[in-house]
Amino acid sequence: MAFKHLLGLEGLSREQITRILDQAVEFKEISKRKIKKVPTLRGITIALFFVEASTRTRTSFEIAAKRLSADTISLTASASSLSKGETLIDTTKNLEAMAPDIFIIRHSVSGSPHMLSKILSCSVVNAGDGTHEHPTQGLLDMMTMREHKGGIEGLDVAIIGDIMHSRVARSNIFGLTAMGAKVRISGPATLVPRDIEKLGVTVCKRVEEAVEGSDVVMMLRIQKERMAGDFFPTTREYSREFGLNLKRLSLAKKDAIVMHPGPMNRGVEISPDVADGTRSVILDQVANGVAVRMAVLYLLSAHVLEGV
Amino acid sequence: MAFKHLLGLEGLSREQITRILDQAVEFKEISKRKIKKVPTLRGITIALFFVEASTRTRTSFEIAAKRLSADTISLTASASSLSKGETLIDTTKNLEAMAPDIFIIRHSVSGSPHMLSKILSCSVVNAGDGTHEHPTQGLLDMMTMREHKGGIEGLDVAIIGDIMHSRVARSNIFGLTAMGAKVRISGPATLVPRDIEKLGVTVCKRVEEAVEGSDVVMMLRIQKERMAGDFFPTTREYSREFGLNLKRLSLAKKDAIVMHPGPMNRGVEISPDVADGTRSVILDQVANGVAVRMAVLYLLSAHVLEGV
Amino acid sequence: MAFKHLLGLEGLSREQITRILDQAVEFKEISKRKIKKVPTLRGITIALFFVEASTRTRTSFEIAAKRLSADTISLTASASSLSKGETLIDTTKNLEAMAPDIFIIRHSVSGSPHMLSKILSCSVVNAGDGTHEHPTQGLLDMMTMREHKGGIEGLDVAIIGDIMHSRVARSNIFGLTAMGAKVRISGPATLVPRDIEKLGVTVCKRVEEAVEGSDVVMMLRIQKERMAGDFFPTTREYSREFGLNLKRLSLAKKDAIVMHPGPMNRGVEISPDVADGTRSVILDQVANGVAVRMAVLYLLSAHVLEGV
Repeated sequence: MAFKHLLGLEGLSREQITRILDQAVEFKEISKRKIKKVPTLRGITIALFFVEASTRTRTSFEIAAKRLSADTISLTASASSLSKGETLIDTTKNLEAMAPDIFIIRHSVSGSPHMLSKILSCSVVNAGDGTHEHPTQGLLDMMTMREHKGGIEGLDVAIIGDIMHSRVARSNIFGLTAMGAKVRISGPATLVPRDIEKLGVTVCKRVEEAVEGSDVVMMLRIQKERMAGDFFPTTREYSREFGLNLKRLSLAKKDAIVMHPGPMNRGVEISPDVADGTRSVILDQVANGVAVRMAVLYLLSAHVLEGV
Repeated sequence: MAFKHLLGLEGLSREQITRILDQAVEFKEISKRKIKKVPTLRGITIALFFVEASTRTRTSFEIAAKRLSADTISLTASASSLSKGETLIDTTKNLEAMAPDIFIIRHSVSGSPHMLSKILSCSVVNAGDGTHEHPTQGLLDMMTMREHKGGIEGLDVAIIGDIMHSRVARSNIFGLTAMGAKVRISGPATLVPRDIEKLGVTVCKRVEEAVEGSDVVMMLRIQKERMAGDFFPTTREYSREFGLNLKRLSLAKKDAIVMHPGPMNRGVEISPDVADGTRSVILDQVANGVAVRMAVLYLLSAHVLEGV
Repeated sequence: MAFKHLLGLEGLSREQITRILDQAVEFKEISKRKIKKVPTLRGITIALFFVEASTRTRTSFEIAAKRLSADTISLTASASSLSKGETLIDTTKNLEAMAPDIFIIRHSVSGSPHMLSKILSCSVVNAGDGTHEHPTQGLLDMMTMREHKGGIEGLDVAIIGDIMHSRVARSNIFGLTAMGAKVRISGPATLVPRDIEKLGVTVCKRVEEAVEGSDVVMMLRIQKERMAGDFFPTTREYSREFGLNLKRLSLAKKDAIVMHPGPMNRGVEISPDVADGTRSVILDQVANGVAVRMAVLYLLSAHVLEGV
């Protein structure tokens, strides 16, 4: 089961994903204790290298590391040598020479964690790379589905929005299909990649088709910078055509849950009454994020600590 | 005595303030040891969310937390989702879902910590909100007065400067009047709020009246951005009319102490010889800041740790 | 042997430098363990005050501190009161009032750590000040030479590039001459200070003279902002005249090592085949940086911990 990097969910087996989720459930208990800390990763150094802004992902990894008693070193692009013109490879090789055990990277260039894993000897975790993957987000989403639905196999999951640019959608598609869920996607025609069916999903032209009868409705964030651009005319129109409101949600199963990776654009892709409603599990996703990241850091450290 | 939030000094009783100050005196001893650390808050996670720049307050809280062995997570506005257009409420609810025990916030909008305390289940500490309150500053000021004067009741305290925009002044006024001190204020007529007497203070038109016979002279920082604006003509004129120099200080009691919350504008609201003089307790204020914040974090954690 | 500050290598004796390097060798072992942490500096607070951008130096100090179980507080200029117009002296005195044990500063003004050491009671470490010194860089360079060459005395060391503005060059010159190495320097005539021979080095007009027969070739970073300025015409010309390529390196001893303090401008002062070649010890320098900084922090803490 030992694995060295977490670069994406593509190619992970049902057993591997289940192992991570089971471990996360165990660790979730720690966050409910009064003393939320175990000495498991004492003496392990974790470098966080975020070349793109992020609140929740960076914070979530950092809290996960600290709950396991690991040391963290945070780096941001502006404070780094990248601004002096050093290449990403040189910067990371330099950081690696300081002997961190795990290197967590977020970068706007798709594939950069993969490239780094080839040249670094330490473990690499992809915390989001361009429009490619965001594997811990996919894992925390699946953990949340399993928690609320008892399992993932056979679930009908609708993913709605800007599929084209969403690393969250891609990681979920890889993970959910491996786990045996049925994934339907919908979004503006300009934002749904051609050939996406090859990944094993069903494309629905109208959002209502995707939502109808689903167990899970996952809304994606619309990047403001893409609004009023070539992809679709206005946020109002987007909201009218693809936003999730109570009426649309009523098409899903009675006990369907609503998910969003955040940060939300309230009133655009999701209406406030849905976001704050009883079916929303959005804050559960965040809480599970810490647990999933604890599990990933723990499992990646296993080969360090046990010499595996 | 257990309290859940520290949003301001308004409404706190003499007993409550005394309890915090007594605790701070105990903790001050720790900062004088060779090993400046106790395991009291091990496993407690403290989120620091500073949406306004700050050196000393953020650092002071962070050192306080670490001396008690708590874990800290620092967030700044630029690195946060606020820049992606997420609402403050969504951002903080997300952070809360990661289960910090205490949430320390500095924000330019008055009342934002109060609003957050209504929606978050964890403890909230106000580290300065707009022109409203800065309660730990008020507490460290009172700790410094008590240390140098033996007590607070009956002290004559002059607060000089931009009263209108000063959260430091407000917190001191609430705290000092609760403790039985007599507060006189003075400043440019445009920067003294009407009806401020209702808070139990005496307004002095001339700075000399406020200083005369006082035990404590507290100078407030003048915001450079307000100089040369509508409030007063020039920094030179401000200094001449309201700045504290040795001549003005000679009007106070012989053993009067001089305070300033920092950062100082030397030569504007305070002359360098006063700032660095024997009566200045400005660096004692900073040192007491760590002790007071240790006390606040400890007392807020009490209900977490003891299940109170 | 106890010393209170590390402001530069100028004036340090061979015995003092050797003591630090010996300690660093001991600590280097810790970074190779599975559990890379010792409790040596538990309860010690280290303030990192970087008023100039830096990845590797700040990170290296932070990792060094954490491996010794010290607490670190990171401050950057933008988040600090300096942006509110406070003087450097006031800012640092304020930080000192919070009782850190060691104050690490990087600043663009030469001599600022020296100035601070006069007014602060805690230990001060210079992490690079303007064009003056960068003592831990000099130490890690010497550690790397000793590691690869068995000793420093009698080594022929060539330092090539912008000597004028290089604090790395200055610290190496002071350290290496104290240790008995022979230093030759070369660079554009506009970037070699007059009278540099007074420091005990030999100036070579052509880079080939400096490299010929040397044991160590240390290339300096060319600041992009000085290119295309008055100092030299173009980066292409710089590379042709002063850059280290395989042909030039062949003039050095067969077992000569190549060093660079980073970040590198590949293709300017160093060709990629040399940077990544078998003689390059550039990543060893980075790894030794953590060990040397552990040694410095440990030795500076000795008088704190043992009351020396």
